Amino acid sequence: MINKRIYLDNAATTKVDDDILNEITKYFNIEYANPSSIYKESRTVQNAIDKARSSVAKLINANSDEIYFTSGGTESDNWAIQCVKNKNKKHIITSKIEHHAILNTCKYMQESGHNVTYLDVDKNGFINPQTLEENITKNTSIVSIMTANNEIGTIQPIKQLCEIAHKNGAYFHTDAVQAIGKLDIDVKDSNLDMMSISGHKIHGLKGIGALYIKKSTQLKNLIYGGSQESTKRAGTENVAAIVSLGLACEKLTANKDEQNYIRNLRDYFVNQVLSKIDDCILTGDKDKRLVNNASFCFANIDSKILIILLDKACICASVGSACTSGSIENSHVIKAIGVDDKYINGNIRFTFSKYNTKEEIDYTVSKLAEIVKKLRNN
Amino acid sequence: MINKRIYLDNAATTKVDDDILNEITKYFNIEYANPSSIYKESRTVQNAIDKARSSVAKLINANSDEIYFTSGGTESDNWAIQCVKNKNKKHIITSKIEHHAILNTCKYMQESGHNVTYLDVDKNGFINPQTLEENITKNTSIVSIMTANNEIGTIQPIKQLCEIAHKNGAYFHTDAVQAIGKLDIDVKDSNLDMMSISGHKIHGLKGIGALYIKKSTQLKNLIYGGSQESTKRAGTENVAAIVSLGLACEKLTANKDEQNYIRNLRDYFVNQVLSKIDDCILTGDKDKRLVNNASFCFANIDSKILIILLDKACICASVGSACTSGSIENSHVIKAIGVDDKYINGNIRFTFSKYNTKEEIDYTVSKLAEIVKKLRNN
Repeated sequence: MINKRIYLDNAATTKVDDDILNEITKYFNIEYANPSSIYKESRTVQNAIDKARSSVAKLINANSDEIYFTSGGTESDNWAIQCVKNKNKKHIITSKIEHHAILNTCKYMQESGHNVTYLDVDKNGFINPQTLEENITKNTSIVSIMTANNEIGTIQPIKQLCEIAHKNGAYFHTDAVQAIGKLDIDVKDSNLDMMSISGHKIHGLKGIGALYIKKSTQLKNLIYGGSQESTKRAGTENVAAIVSLGLACEKLTANKDEQNYIRNLRDYFVNQVLSKIDDCILTGDKDKRLVNNASFCFANIDSKILIILLDKACICASVGSACTSGSIENSHVIKAIGVDDKYINGNIRFTFSKYNTKEEIDYTVSKLAEIVKKLRNN
Repeated sequence: MINKRIYLDNAATTKVDDDILNEITKYFNIEYANPSSIYKESRTVQNAIDKARSSVAKLINANSDEIYFTSGGTESDNWAIQCVKNKNKKHIITSKIEHHAILNTCKYMQESGHNVTYLDVDKNGFINPQTLEENITKNTSIVSIMTANNEIGTIQPIKQLCEIAHKNGAYFHTDAVQAIGKLDIDVKDSNLDMMSISGHKIHGLKGIGALYIKKSTQLKNLIYGGSQESTKRAGTENVAAIVSLGLACEKLTANKDEQNYIRNLRDYFVNQVLSKIDDCILTGDKDKRLVNNASFCFANIDSKILIILLDKACICASVGSACTSGSIENSHVIKAIGVDDKYINGNIRFTFSKYNTKEEIDYTVSKLAEIVKKLRNN
């Protein structure tokens, strides 16, 4: 028996790192000045923002002045898609398995007169670069493909896709909200034009994200007002949250070993599940997947009931992404990879963090096997 | 002599209330779940969000389901102005003394094919309802007038302006970021269609705001994605910040006396300044002004130098608004109210909170008089 809740939904959100929390609390009630004012206190917090910007830049090999803080990954995605300016071109390419922050923004762009192509993926969730070649035109303004999928963890060949976009005069944006910290991203090596990241997926605060914008990218504002963020994103800077994102990135830069710790836990979990539970498939690719993601489809199981029973057994897991779990529809990702009918209602995602332990995994595997067996016997 | 820094820039931002800070910290590292997930932890934080929504609604006499959380006042303003749908009408009316979150959003709307009328104000900063009558047309989509000005504190006749807007088929939006908590606002009595508020001006966190949207208001999204905020504003809910805004509103509802405490301090300060410093005018209206605002123009003074010397004397004050204090231009508000040339460079704003004391005021008056005298003798 285990005497606490087990949190295995780290793709939905993460616990704020205690070291980070200790550092940022002062920005609420001691160093609380508005960074845009001109007295001593404001210069201090402005320096803290500058430092955070530089820490974010360092993690992804960007220049500091290419990092713009936003209210989160969703705002970053909206900004990139809604506001890119590319010679009045009105064609957008994305994939069928993007996060809804991209899919619903693209839907809105369609309603406003753009054409949008949603690329198919293969059974492991990969976009074939050939498919992008076939669909891109001289009228394509932007290609937006996530670095790695939030439900099944599949890592896309971003560098190759970006090259195809550029060859055809399109910008390339990637939603790296899930990927950041779980794999090494080098915006210069991949030659990305824009990239979205989020604080609360990497043990920073909720309500903070960033958009990497390469200097040559033409992008109008989404949010106008004061001259914050070099006049590109108005609104009083969310100092504590910005610093939390900076510190989270610093920690990721310093502790690359964390990826291995999480991968080992995840591999152990996947092997245990596949060996102990029948009629269960790992969704996504076995190798080219985020180190923290284990997603499955169980045959003849309704995963919404499975989640509820896991909850009762003190285990937090999810069906698809958090943003859509209130919905009664099946996951668009699971549909897109085309699993067999008997698996389609049985998708579940476990996502790990540095705070998880082998003990938690053992307990979870045993409970999961027990519950699946019980549900199948009903 | 006083042995600490004196913060008199509470219109720029405020210290987070210690009671509020104590309540919200758990949402960072204990109750950190994503509210959209479906296990126990998520229901707990979803309940906390619901409670906050209801506290915000109560303060302004709205229904809970008319409160939508945003990343701040600036996003709320952008959302209202950019996204209102009123039969394809393309005329916007605002005033010359709005915050830049409104002015620069309107400028963008002009670039996108809208006409914008910027109403003049009188020498105290008031909009004459007659002026609105004269400028509104059947093509006016929205009228946006701030409840009270951020620099000079002037309180507008919102209810009357709103009535004129409605009579002409236009929506009415108000930026109440500065007004909230400093005067009683009743969205039903004033019949407002939309109202922007912000957390960090009322001792809540930065990075959180809300837009009140009356049920009958037609408004498309600014930010698309997951189904948060009844599908109107996507993005993982910023739980701690939302709760902070709710608690800040609860405190304001419970402690209406605070307004009197702040008004008394402010009145004492204004009287002291006007009696001890020559050639100094109070900007804005003597009576119909925010209780926390004392703004002046000193003849033959460069207020940017004044601010720096006050900073050295441990006093935080501001020239115009924080969002524009990096700019070398004179305040658009001071220009709009038309002060005499000898006063134009000498505008300064002191804004008070419940944390200020009479001792701080006495020290500030004495230092201010000393510095103004010294600057004039140079």
